[in-house]
Amino acid sequence: MTREPGGDKVAEGVRALLLSQEMTARTELLLFLAARAQNVELVVRPHLEAGGIVLCDRYTDSSIAYQGVARRLGRDSVAVLNDFATDHLQPDLTLLLDLPPEVGLARQQDRNRMEAESLSFHQAVRVGFLAEAERDPKRFRVLSAETDVETLHAQILGTVKDSLKSGSIES
Amino acid sequence: MTREPGGDKVAEGVRALLLSQEMTARTELLLFLAARAQNVELVVRPHLEAGGIVLCDRYTDSSIAYQGVARRLGRDSVAVLNDFATDHLQPDLTLLLDLPPEVGLARQQDRNRMEAESLSFHQAVRVGFLAEAERDPKRFRVLSAETDVETLHAQILGTVKDSLKSGSIES
Repeated sequence: MTREPGGDKVAEGVRALLLSQEMTARTELLLFLAARAQNVELVVRPHLEAGGIVLCDRYTDSSIAYQGVARRLGRDSVAVLNDFATDHLQPDLTLLLDLPPEVGLARQQDRNRMEAESLSFHQAVRVGFLAEAERDPKRFRVLSAETDVETLHAQILGTVKDSLKSGSIES
Repeated sequence: MTREPGGDKVAEGVRALLLSQEMTARTELLLFLAARAQNVELVVRPHLEAGGIVLCDRYTDSSIAYQGVARRLGRDSVAVLNDFATDHLQPDLTLLLDLPPEVGLARQQDRNRMEAESLSFHQAVRVGFLAEAERDPKRFRVLSAETDVETLHAQILGTVKDSLKSGSIES
């Protein structure tokens, strides 16, 4: 399941603020968590409880990498707040599409407030994500996003199918 | 110092969402905390560091009473989140203007989303506030708001002047 952007007025309003307004790091984190709390309780959990599988673009690890590590609010503080916002809901499988920031930034065309950050910021984000992957190797699969789209797509599909088969994703 | 409503686009946007949209209790709490984090870091702390006194209508105790107690997210969970959002900034003096909810609701004319809650909700909020006052008697003064405005005003002024004289408010 993917969530419709704009399907929820609260998440939509929060996202608009996050991408357009200057704010403190703490405010930014709390706004992301507010949108996530809304999404988890009203969309993700009901779908899981109905026996569905939820596919999600960005989740708690992004808060750790961006606000905990790159904005220096502290990895563990953000982890505690993530647990509160999601009421401890964690994915069965997390795919980290890893890319050197130079390559990622060169691919972008329009940049929002987060994407317009410095190269060193994006390097810290990457360090944050890779550290989470190392901390929880059972949940994470790190895939290089430097490869071409078709190869990456096949790798993702293979990883998801393997996880479904082995029962590490419940459906 | 009082803060101009609308002086900050983030706080203004968050407030508009909070008062108009339906949302989960966790989302509501995180949005209040986001607005508070922004206010504390950009307005309150700079003013305190410049030697000023800050007067604030509602602060961390409101999150505990409304979301922690009345919305049942847990007093201690909300206290931890408050500490993060404010980076542990607490007032020197907190005046709790206490009123039975029946009396308070009868005084209201227009009601926003919070004020439109049930009587039992407002009773829980009051219990939450009074419990905080009991927990921290050094910081709290509980004043009955059933009295007339002039008497209450004189009591508030007296309390603040006493605190300034005794040094429990630093200026």
